[in-house]
Amino acid sequence: MMSLKQGFFITFEGPEGAGKSSQVERLAAYLRSRGMECLLTREPGGTPLAECLRTMVKSHHGAETIHPETELLLIEAARAQHAREVILPALDAGKTVICDRFYDSTTAYQGGARNLPGEIISALNLFAAGGRKPDLTFLMDLPPETGFLRIRERESDGYDRFEHEDLAFHRAVRSEFLRVARNEPERVKVIDAAQDRNTISEIIRRVVDESLF
Amino acid sequence: MMSLKQGFFITFEGPEGAGKSSQVERLAAYLRSRGMECLLTREPGGTPLAECLRTMVKSHHGAETIHPETELLLIEAARAQHAREVILPALDAGKTVICDRFYDSTTAYQGGARNLPGEIISALNLFAAGGRKPDLTFLMDLPPETGFLRIRERESDGYDRFEHEDLAFHRAVRSEFLRVARNEPERVKVIDAAQDRNTISEIIRRVVDESLF
Repeated sequence: MMSLKQGFFITFEGPEGAGKSSQVERLAAYLRSRGMECLLTREPGGTPLAECLRTMVKSHHGAETIHPETELLLIEAARAQHAREVILPALDAGKTVICDRFYDSTTAYQGGARNLPGEIISALNLFAAGGRKPDLTFLMDLPPETGFLRIRERESDGYDRFEHEDLAFHRAVRSEFLRVARNEPERVKVIDAAQDRNTISEIIRRVVDESLF
Repeated sequence: MMSLKQGFFITFEGPEGAGKSSQVERLAAYLRSRGMECLLTREPGGTPLAECLRTMVKSHHGAETIHPETELLLIEAARAQHAREVILPALDAGKTVICDRFYDSTTAYQGGARNLPGEIISALNLFAAGGRKPDLTFLMDLPPETGFLRIRERESDGYDRFEHEDLAFHRAVRSEFLRVARNEPERVKVIDAAQDRNTISEIIRRVVDESLF
């Protein structure tokens, strides 16, 4: 029997339309087939309260505009709750946790694209996550134009506040994601999300095998 | 005609049951009688979104516990929204803003009583408030035992998450409020809230007259 790492924390990052959710599920199925206990979750959200905050952050609020600072703090509040209610207890129990988006999304969206100061974002990411960094992060990279097209095909009831943003916004998100990956190449693996699903699953499995087993 | 300060920001702090709301209203009536435009507001809350967050923070959530870090971030999110939607625009327009609770409550409740780190609280207070400090703060000081009694008399449908806390919690809140007042004696005026309402209104008017006119 192989020895394997207990309490391993894997996150998926990237724009909407990059296929994160489907790869999260494929990876979980693979790890379970190898006998590992996996917890799948997502951000913002992951607890009833945090899911309320997700809805709040993504929705339009009539005459009231959500200010960027409010958006950041709501997302960090959801993360603080999610980390302490779900992620940290599961990791402590030895489970593998796979999370669809985590704090690199905050760095990319609220930092890179909304231009909030990097120092406060780093401090809040760490505070909200209880100091726990992901062990491995897959950045599903896609040119914003492609992500946009994929979203347009699948959405029918209008775009949320983020999908509503223009191309310049999504370009800034991508560029910040890639900057994070350059700064932490050991943790963050960039995947070309334009490849077909099976190829991507294979790449992800190989990386996870090397890290976990 | 006297010259008077435009865009003056007054906050009221202290425990539940100290009579803050009634003094806020009396002060507003007084200032209006002197021809000033006043905006009355409160925290957490003050916008539709921030009032939702207020309800979220104060309520019990069944099996899900709101963690102290989540509580702090929700309150700061509400503040970020309230400051940018309501307080800062009113001050910019030259109004006097009177706010029932502001960031000293966060220092006292989430810092002093919940023991979250002071550095992150100070940084968040400043970030959420957009760097705007109150010009004048009245700390309605009351021994927790007295505040408790007053609340018990007026509440009928159970206590919220803060009222539910024990005496040690409310003692820590008071002691932190008093520490803030000692550190910033120019801004924070301590009022003995055990005095009768008219006496307190008189004291407050005198201080405001000196600061404003």
